[in-house]
Amino acid sequence: GFATATQSNKVTIGLIPADGIGREVIPAARQVLESLPKSDLSPRFEFIHLDAGFEHFQKHGVALPEETLTRLRGECQGALFGAVSSPSHKVAGYSSPIVALRKHLDLYANVRPVASVAGTGQKQIDMLIIRENTECLYIKQERIETDANGLKVAYADRRISEYASRRAGQMAFNMALMRDKLRSSIPASERLWQGKPKVTIIHKSNVLSITDGLWRETVRGVKENNAALYAGVDMDEQLVDSMVYRMFREPEAFDVVVAPNLYGDIISDGAAALVGSLGLVPSANVGDNFVVGEPVHGSAPDIAGQQKANPIAAIRSAGLLLEHMGYSGDAARIYQAVDGVLREGLIKTPDLGGKSTTQEVTDAVCTRR
Amino acid sequence: GFATATQSNKVTIGLIPADGIGREVIPAARQVLESLPKSDLSPRFEFIHLDAGFEHFQKHGVALPEETLTRLRGECQGALFGAVSSPSHKVAGYSSPIVALRKHLDLYANVRPVASVAGTGQKQIDMLIIRENTECLYIKQERIETDANGLKVAYADRRISEYASRRAGQMAFNMALMRDKLRSSIPASERLWQGKPKVTIIHKSNVLSITDGLWRETVRGVKENNAALYAGVDMDEQLVDSMVYRMFREPEAFDVVVAPNLYGDIISDGAAALVGSLGLVPSANVGDNFVVGEPVHGSAPDIAGQQKANPIAAIRSAGLLLEHMGYSGDAARIYQAVDGVLREGLIKTPDLGGKSTTQEVTDAVCTRR
Ligand SMILES: CC(C)[C@H](C(=O)O)[C@@H](O)C(=O)O
Ligand SMILES: CC(C)[C@H](C(=O)O)[C@@H](O)C(=O)O
Repeated sequence: GFATATQSNKVTIGLIPADGIGREVIPAARQVLESLPKSDLSPRFEFIHLDAGFEHFQKHGVALPEETLTRLRGECQGALFGAVSSPSHKVAGYSSPIVALRKHLDLYANVRPVASVAGTGQKQIDMLIIRENTECLYIKQERIETDANGLKVAYADRRISEYASRRAGQMAFNMALMRDKLRSSIPASERLWQGKPKVTIIHKSNVLSITDGLWRETVRGVKENNAALYAGVDMDEQLVDSMVYRMFREPEAFDVVVAPNLYGDIISDGAAALVGSLGLVPSANVGDNFVVGEPVHGSAPDIAGQQKANPIAAIRSAGLLLEHMGYSGDAARIYQAVDGVLREGLIKTPDLGGKSTTQEVTDAVCTRR
Repeated sequence: GFATATQSNKVTIGLIPADGIGREVIPAARQVLESLPKSDLSPRFEFIHLDAGFEHFQKHGVALPEETLTRLRGECQGALFGAVSSPSHKVAGYSSPIVALRKHLDLYANVRPVASVAGTGQKQIDMLIIRENTECLYIKQERIETDANGLKVAYADRRISEYASRRAGQMAFNMALMRDKLRSSIPASERLWQGKPKVTIIHKSNVLSITDGLWRETVRGVKENNAALYAGVDMDEQLVDSMVYRMFREPEAFDVVVAPNLYGDIISDGAAALVGSLGLVPSANVGDNFVVGEPVHGSAPDIAGQQKANPIAAIRSAGLLLEHMGYSGDAARIYQAVDGVLREGLIKTPDLGGKSTTQEVTDAVCTRR
């Protein structure tokens, strides 16, 4: 079981910077969390530093230490994960710690909001990607054989289950309702998404009729079997290849998008290009009992240690962490502070065409929250 | 074996319009082929109409009739395929005819050039995507089971072989050299790609270390084992998720891109968004003995039969067909005629913001070739 708060509002967060710029953006997110105004209702944070990553593997032979998992389970209510480097060649015994973390903590949905900031002149986009987070090709069941001619043949299993598809689908429909409710509190003229809430199901069932067929039917079933609850939510679907095309042509056509693991991975990086930088896009790995915030970007070894990393994705991930832990007021403060800094457009890192440092952007957010 | 031309320059082309707008764009491509000036060196075309598609399946219970395969093999030197509709729900016994065609004719590389037209003010892009065309998740080995709780669990096999990866890799490096040679004949100021030819390998070996590991090592091996031949070609790599991001941010950074089947499918639709319309992007399914030209777009049932379809993808696919059959002079005529119409920008279908019909665009191309 997971640790429950021993005293009301005390929240223990595991910080796992991992590799590269993870070591710069996770401290930035922590600073923003610590800058939140204290009230009786807001959380009192404690932070624990935890190890993981490819560099940790290179030094100690393990990418996700048992101690990290034990302390997350035993002492934390949530965590922030930085980024992990990818080996440039096959490394025996290495396996991605973030994929393992998602699996071990049963963080079954990866929630990735991609939205433009009103007033920045960007193409309007307000999309929430829900990525199934536990299966598909990420189960890593692979094998290699030698054929009759002595050539290698490798296979990977892609798993799609009714259980996991339904959980992801439910998350999608529930988030669609939730977003609709939140929207009703902002003036109509400022809403990016104007229509009825909508869930778009991504699949490739024209080729994968059995696996993606099961995915599609199961996610559809979530609405069909809860007709009254989800009556207000529209549902449509898009083949994954067409989705990447349409997303770039008409990003404003999507509200909540729900996808199997790998398609979700690809689509969220694509969506990030639409809002100007991967350095802006946060995610939350969400389970029933635990949440891990994680910027969508990678470890960016080329700029690591130079104060060039955009901390906003990590800061927004801290916001998502709070939101999914039930502190939506504090989360909103973080989002608004970030939007304010972006709208002003003066203090920004090089990925957005600016010259500011990671620390300067972080300080600017802290000043506004 | 495949039919060989019985008399020099006689070329028999199978026309397989299949579904939806395939029935409009394939006749358009035929008209352009027939409009080519006749010389001693140019091909004399004969056309055979062949059936396939989802609508054919609905009427006759078979998506790719045996007769179509037999006549392609026995009478044709190449073919043009239109587009195929996807069933909106699971249909017992149906399987995509284009996937089957690629497999039966061993068309192991899908060659997809995506380029902007100089002088149209578009973002500069001159990319050639080589998509492995026979395996990955497209082997359609799927199964479904019931778990202990009575819930469904489905699996698909993803196959990556050294044999298929090497063939795709060789195609990529050979095309990189070929493109470099062709470029040297155009003035430097008009070349979109200015650098040394480059092959970018797409993979996701940070998750799929065995299958995508084999893919990556094998494609790299093509260069490493032919160091002298490919000394002039640079090689780099990109994770598939990062690729979708970078492609949108810096499309000018890519020359030849080589990808496993599904990633190639997704990336080519994404690249199409960059040049303004899926209606512009052609492909050729290439084997050692046979070529099938195929527009990248789908059957677009919403606009079928209304003369709204952009015929350019199909017309350019006819050009690719000629190119891969060895008639590069005639192919160049087609490409130049299309570029001329696009550069002028007066006659265009609705996907490009125009009001012209399929027939009007086709006639405009025929006038210029
Ligand atoms: C690092 C990698 C294993 C990971 C993934 O593919 O899930 C990353 O791309 C992400 O999106 O979080
Ligand atoms: C229709 C479908 C099976 C096909 C594919 O996925 O290969 C199409 O998307 C393509 O790109 O040719």
